[in-house]
Amino acid sequence: MSDAPTPSRSHGRLSIAASLKPRVLMEEPARLAAAWRARIITLFPEAFPGILGLSLTGRALDEGKWGYDTIQLRDFGIGKHRNVDDTPAGGGAGMVLRPDVVGAAIETAQAGTPRDRALWPILYMSPRGKPFDQAMARRLAGAQGVTILCGRFEGVDERVLEHYQVEEVSIGDFVLTGGELAAQVLIDATIRLLPGVLGNQASTEEESFSHGLLEHPQYTRPAEWQGRAIPEVLTSGHHGKIESWRREMSEEITRARRPDLWEAHISQQKKGK
Amino acid sequence: MSDAPTPSRSHGRLSIAASLKPRVLMEEPARLAAAWRARIITLFPEAFPGILGLSLTGRALDEGKWGYDTIQLRDFGIGKHRNVDDTPAGGGAGMVLRPDVVGAAIETAQAGTPRDRALWPILYMSPRGKPFDQAMARRLAGAQGVTILCGRFEGVDERVLEHYQVEEVSIGDFVLTGGELAAQVLIDATIRLLPGVLGNQASTEEESFSHGLLEHPQYTRPAEWQGRAIPEVLTSGHHGKIESWRREMSEEITRARRPDLWEAHISQQKKGK
Repeated sequence: MSDAPTPSRSHGRLSIAASLKPRVLMEEPARLAAAWRARIITLFPEAFPGILGLSLTGRALDEGKWGYDTIQLRDFGIGKHRNVDDTPAGGGAGMVLRPDVVGAAIETAQAGTPRDRALWPILYMSPRGKPFDQAMARRLAGAQGVTILCGRFEGVDERVLEHYQVEEVSIGDFVLTGGELAAQVLIDATIRLLPGVLGNQASTEEESFSHGLLEHPQYTRPAEWQGRAIPEVLTSGHHGKIESWRREMSEEITRARRPDLWEAHISQQKKGK
Repeated sequence: MSDAPTPSRSHGRLSIAASLKPRVLMEEPARLAAAWRARIITLFPEAFPGILGLSLTGRALDEGKWGYDTIQLRDFGIGKHRNVDDTPAGGGAGMVLRPDVVGAAIETAQAGTPRDRALWPILYMSPRGKPFDQAMARRLAGAQGVTILCGRFEGVDERVLEHYQVEEVSIGDFVLTGGELAAQVLIDATIRLLPGVLGNQASTEEESFSHGLLEHPQYTRPAEWQGRAIPEVLTSGHHGKIESWRREMSEEITRARRPDLWEAHISQQKKGK
């Protein structure tokens, strides 16, 4: 495996056509095959990698530490116009993605991936889903990769979600124009937990977040700005006092801003005793 | 105002340099000045518009129904290397964005905008913030525009948040590599609520979401797929039965997946009586 060549940029950004054979996917270099991978079913493949191609996630992409493939849903559409959706059974506004069209796209996306959904979950970004959080990001980072279905304006036929044991995932209680942004959020939060993608900085943040409390206020130079000074305790050099001040501020901010997190934190502490 | 020329694509995508004078911003065509606008302070201006430039949000951008400006934080950096951050007072890992640097960027971003924060909020994307939801999207859509500060890996000096009455906003309980994706999520959810940006589809979804329940399952053609049929009630043509089935399913799914939403829904109903 260590003899495998460094994958080129084009390897990290494979676009899967409808006709692609599973064997082709399995012939990728060994190192790349081992890297975490997102297969994204979308009507807007040009939306990727987007922001994920910049900064540290972009560097990690170029280094083959993660990769992605886009699968154009339109390629599986029906008829001359390659329709992917149809009117909802029972009436109502909007359109619904057809199960046969989505099913064919999922079959292509799954080519060469483990059948065990724990090793390779299939996700559908939707406000109906389980809320995405840091714990889910950790779980997904432990998988070999994920397949993500991005909807757009519409629902998807429930049967295809059942048939493929698709997990519905929500990034929040708001409505987006499409699932692509939600998919990028999920991928970003997940790949930054992969080994070697980020430096120590990331693990620190992750740890801070894992305490279940919001972060204390931060200060840096200059010592005075707009008549506002850095709190004295932080410049005292007394590490014990600094730690307890930060802890107190964290607790205070969490209590004030996020009573839900605060209650969870308290009940966690009680269990620990 | 109706005589104002249709703004060109470049007008919708102005990049503000550090030296830009307020007057220049105020000389934009009247129609564009009236359109909702995001001013984004970021180290990665090239991340915008990203996905927002595609599909319906992209069309609305081209039509001048909303617009954005990027402000490169680096332009306000200090010294030869244009440093924007420094080590945290009191010690600890990571870096903190300097108040003088961020403050100068905010001053530039605010040029020509209303001083009333209700008309033009200043937002900082951060996991410490108030959770972003559909109600906040509605509030922001009612403003003339927003300024958004995108952090990256680090915190920001608390004094600058206080001084400019910056609202901290979180899109969820997870850690992202940077605030840019979170900003795009916030902008997407907000601009789709602006008049004329989307069609009837959007208002329908919005309404469905506003009930506080998750959406019922959807089905479409074919009538049978992989041995799975569309539930009979939906093909019965009996509108009353279809409505109550959908309502029941919505309630069932909300209860199972989101006990928090379900409790809020129940207590809302009790208040209504």
